[in-house]
Amino acid sequence: MKKTLKYWGWGYDSDGLNAGETQELLGTFANGYGIRPTDNGVFPPLEEVVLTAPRLTPPTSLAKICSFEKYERVLHAFGQSQPDSIRIYMRDFAHAPDVVAYPESAKDIVALFDWCVDVGAALIPYGAGSSVVGGVTSDVGSDYNGTVSADMSRMGRVLEIDEVSRAALIQGGARGPALEAQLKPSGLTLRHFPQSFEHSTFGGWVATRSGGHFATLYTHIDDLVENVTMVTPAGEMVSRRLPGSGAGPSPDRLMIGSEGALGIITEGWVRLQGRPTFKATAGFRFVNFLDAARAVRAVAQAGLYPANVRIVDDVELNVNGAGDGSFTLMVVSFESSDHPVDAWMARAEQCCLDHGATIDVGWHDNPQANLQGAVGAWREAFIRMPYNREQLTPRGIISDTFETAITWDRFEGFYQAIREATADAIRDVTGQTGAVSCRFSHAYPDGPAPYFAFHAQGRKGSLLEQWQAIKDAASYAVIREGGTITHHHAVGRDHQKWYEQQRPVLFGDILGAAKQRLDPKGILNPGVVVR
Amino acid sequence: MKKTLKYWGWGYDSDGLNAGETQELLGTFANGYGIRPTDNGVFPPLEEVVLTAPRLTPPTSLAKICSFEKYERVLHAFGQSQPDSIRIYMRDFAHAPDVVAYPESAKDIVALFDWCVDVGAALIPYGAGSSVVGGVTSDVGSDYNGTVSADMSRMGRVLEIDEVSRAALIQGGARGPALEAQLKPSGLTLRHFPQSFEHSTFGGWVATRSGGHFATLYTHIDDLVENVTMVTPAGEMVSRRLPGSGAGPSPDRLMIGSEGALGIITEGWVRLQGRPTFKATAGFRFVNFLDAARAVRAVAQAGLYPANVRIVDDVELNVNGAGDGSFTLMVVSFESSDHPVDAWMARAEQCCLDHGATIDVGWHDNPQANLQGAVGAWREAFIRMPYNREQLTPRGIISDTFETAITWDRFEGFYQAIREATADAIRDVTGQTGAVSCRFSHAYPDGPAPYFAFHAQGRKGSLLEQWQAIKDAASYAVIREGGTITHHHAVGRDHQKWYEQQRPVLFGDILGAAKQRLDPKGILNPGVVVR
Repeated sequence: MKKTLKYWGWGYDSDGLNAGETQELLGTFANGYGIRPTDNGVFPPLEEVVLTAPRLTPPTSLAKICSFEKYERVLHAFGQSQPDSIRIYMRDFAHAPDVVAYPESAKDIVALFDWCVDVGAALIPYGAGSSVVGGVTSDVGSDYNGTVSADMSRMGRVLEIDEVSRAALIQGGARGPALEAQLKPSGLTLRHFPQSFEHSTFGGWVATRSGGHFATLYTHIDDLVENVTMVTPAGEMVSRRLPGSGAGPSPDRLMIGSEGALGIITEGWVRLQGRPTFKATAGFRFVNFLDAARAVRAVAQAGLYPANVRIVDDVELNVNGAGDGSFTLMVVSFESSDHPVDAWMARAEQCCLDHGATIDVGWHDNPQANLQGAVGAWREAFIRMPYNREQLTPRGIISDTFETAITWDRFEGFYQAIREATADAIRDVTGQTGAVSCRFSHAYPDGPAPYFAFHAQGRKGSLLEQWQAIKDAASYAVIREGGTITHHHAVGRDHQKWYEQQRPVLFGDILGAAKQRLDPKGILNPGVVVR
Repeated sequence: MKKTLKYWGWGYDSDGLNAGETQELLGTFANGYGIRPTDNGVFPPLEEVVLTAPRLTPPTSLAKICSFEKYERVLHAFGQSQPDSIRIYMRDFAHAPDVVAYPESAKDIVALFDWCVDVGAALIPYGAGSSVVGGVTSDVGSDYNGTVSADMSRMGRVLEIDEVSRAALIQGGARGPALEAQLKPSGLTLRHFPQSFEHSTFGGWVATRSGGHFATLYTHIDDLVENVTMVTPAGEMVSRRLPGSGAGPSPDRLMIGSEGALGIITEGWVRLQGRPTFKATAGFRFVNFLDAARAVRAVAQAGLYPANVRIVDDVELNVNGAGDGSFTLMVVSFESSDHPVDAWMARAEQCCLDHGATIDVGWHDNPQANLQGAVGAWREAFIRMPYNREQLTPRGIISDTFETAITWDRFEGFYQAIREATADAIRDVTGQTGAVSCRFSHAYPDGPAPYFAFHAQGRKGSLLEQWQAIKDAASYAVIREGGTITHHHAVGRDHQKWYEQQRPVLFGDILGAAKQRLDPKGILNPGVVVR
C-alpha cells in the first residue's frame, strides 16, 4: 500500500513520534525549561479543511498532468516551517494552490509557464516541500489570478551515470532515497545528505543551496555541481558540463540559489564519490562550548577535511535526551573509499585533546562508535527531530531553528549576541524563559556555521505573532552582527526582507534584471529572492 | 636603482634568458622540430615607437594621478599574449592608451569613471599587465574618444590580517611578492601562485578567476574569496564577509571573473593558510601520457588533495630541456602546516605505481626532491618559461599556450582531437610540422585541466595571421569537443567569440543586463566578457 504524506508535518502519516517519545519530549520541556502544553489541539483532519474553488482551468493539453484533488492542494499549500505548521493548525488554507501540476518533461514545464503567463497565474516550483523558510508556501498575494504548484516528482530519474568521471546526470525531481537507490548499482554515491534527505529533491537542493552530510570541504550542493539545466519562461539555460572553468562569471552560480524565482532546475550533472569503506568516528566532551568551538577551529584549520566535525551544546543535547546538561559534545568522523583514515583521525583527536576534550566514544577498533555514547544518542535524536514539531505546535509550544555563518574572529561575540537576542525576545514575547541552543552544522577554515534552535511557551491564538517577533529579533541580530541570514536553509519568503539587507543593493538590481529577462511576467515563485 | 619593466615582454629589463639559454632554446627547436629562426629582428627601442598625441586631458583634480609619459603609454598598450608580442614587434602602437592613471583610492576610481563617462572615453582596468588573452590590450575600436589605462599599483596594501580566522583584507593592486611579504610576519600565506605571480595582482586574480599553486582542491582564487568590494560606475558593490553562505545566488561569483567589464575590484577578504612546514615531493615516469593521466585520475579520486599532481608530456619536457622525449613526468607533492604528510604521499605513490609508474625522484627522507631529476629540471624551466617568448617572436617562431578542462570520460578522445586540430593547423598554416605538447595544470576528481603548448615556424610579416589561424583551429576544437575555452587564463579579447559560444545565451543576456546596470555607458574594458 502506498504511504500517504502528511500535509501537517514531516513525512508519511504512518511515521512520527510514538506516545512514549512524545511524553519524553514534553517532559523535557516541562521539567527542564518550564515549557508546558497549553492546548490539547490537533491539526485539522482533511474534511475540516475548507478550500476555495479552483480559479484556474488548465488547457486540455495540460489536463492530464494537473490535479484539483483537495488532498493535493492542501499538501502543496505549505512547506515545513514553524509558521507553516502554525497556519495549518489554524486552518489557514485560503491561499492553497488552485491546481497542482506534475510535469513529466521540460516540454510540460514550458507549457505550464505559457499557460500561467496567459492567465496571469503564479507558479510555485515544488520539489518535495521540505522548505523551512516558506520557499514553497503558495501564498503569493492578490496580484495573481490563481496559483499553480508545480510538483517535480514525475521527473525523478537518474538519467546517466559516468563511472569514469564519477558523475551523474540527475533530474530535478529525484528525491534523496530514490536518487541513491538508482546510483547504488554503480558503487557510487552523491553522499549529499541534508536532514531533509528523505523528503527533498535534487532540484530543490540546487535551487536552495542545500547543505549536506559533510561538515567540511563539500558542504553545499554548489560544490558538487558540474552543470545545470534550468527551464525558464524565456527558454532553457544549459551550462556546459565541466570539472572546472575560469571563463567569465559562473553561469551555474547564478542558477544555484535562485530558489525557483528564475526558472525550474530540470536536471544537472553532479560529482559522485566511491562508497566509503573506511570509516572512523569519535566523540569528545567539553565542559565549555567555546572550548569545543576552538577545537573545531583547530581541526578545520589543520587541512584534514573530516566528513563530520560537529559540536552540540549542553542545551541541545539535553533537549534531545543525549546529554545531562553538563557538557558539549563534539563528533568527529572521517571516511574514505580509498584508504584507511587512521592518520587523519589521530591528528584530529590530538587537536581535540589539546583543547581540553575528554573522550565520549573512542575510535580505535570501534566501527560502532557512531552508535555509542552521547554520539549515538544524539544521532538517533537528529534523525527523529523533524517529527517533533507536529507534537509541539498543537500544544502551543513554539519550536524553530535558524542557521548562519560567521568568521572565527567574530564568532564568540556573535554567539553570545545571537543567544541573548533570541532569549531576550522569548522572554519579552512569552513572559518566560525558553530554551536556546546551538550546534555547528558545518565548519570552514575561516569560520563555523552555527545552528541555533529555540523553544518557547506559546499562547493559544497568538502563536504566529509570537513566533514572528522572536524570529525577527534573532534575524535582526544575525544581520546586525555580520552573519548570513541563512547558511543552508535558503531565503524563501521568511528571510526575504533580511536577505535584501544582506545582499549588495546593486546585486539585488542585477537579480531584478535577470528576473526581468527570464521571467518578465513575474510568474515564478513571487516574493522569493527577487521581488 | 628601480628596475624598469619591459614593454615588449615578461618582467624587468634586467631579467631574461642569457645567451647560453637562448642558444639552447633555439637549438632544441631547430634540432628537435625543424623550427628555425627566420629573422634576426629585435623589438623596437622606445625612441622608434610612434604614438599619436593624447586625445584626453584629465580634469585638474585627476591630473596628479595621470601620466602621459611615452614609456607608460607604451607599457600599458599590451599584455603578455602572443599577438601582443607580435604587434609590439610590428610597432603597432596606434591604440596605446591616451592616459595612464594611477588611482590611490576608491574615490579616485569613481572620479576616473565620471570623467570617462563625461568625455566618452574607455577605461581599461590594469593590474600588472600579465594577461595572455588580450584582457588589458587597450585596443577598443573607434567608438570611444580616448582610452585610459587605470593601473592599480598604488592600491597595493594588505589592509588587515585576521590571524584567528586566517584571512586578510587585500587591496586590488597588490602584486604577488608584495602581498606575501606583507603577510609574512603573521606566519600566514595566501599561497596563490599563478605562473604570473611576480607580475600580477590580487584584483587581477579575482577579476580573471586565476588558477594558483594547488593542483587540486583550492585551484582558483574563487575558492579563497570571503568577500569582494567592486567599484562600478553605478556605485560600490560590497558583499558580506562570510566563510560560507546559502543566501541566494552568490554575489561574489558574479564579480569573480568579470574581467574589468563590470567594475574594478578594489579590495577583498581572502582565506589564508599556515606556512607549510611538512612537505613531500615525488617524481614518477610513465612511458605513455595516457597511463600518466589515469594515475592522475586515481590520485584525484582518492580524496588525498595533493598540493601538486601534474603530468608533463614527452614533448613539453623535451622542449624545456627536462626530458629526452622518452617519458611523461608526473610530479606529486603534499604539504601541511599541521601534520606530517607521509600517509598521504604513500597512498598517492601507490596509485602511481599501480598505473605503471617508475620512480624519477623518491620522496622518503628527501627534502630536496623538488630540485632533483626531471622534477627539478622541469621546475627550473617552468620558472624561466615566461622569458622565452621575447626570444622567439623576433625570430619568427610562434609560441603559445592554451588551457581547458574536460571530464575524465571524454578526456582521451578530447586530448587526441585537440592535439590533432592544433598540429593540423600548424601544418596547414606554416607548411611544416610544429611542436604540440600537453601537461595538466590542475586535476579534479571528475576531470583534468589539460594545458597545451604549441610552437611553429612563422613567416615574417604574417605572424599575426598565422597565429590567429592556429589559435582559431585549436579554440574551435576545444569548443566543439566540449571543453571550456579557458580554465584559468581568462576570456579577454582573444577568447571572447569562443566564450560567447560556450556560455548559455540567456546567461549572456543577463551579463548584458548587469553591464547595463553597472556600466550603462559601456566605458569599462570594452570587448571583454560583455559586448
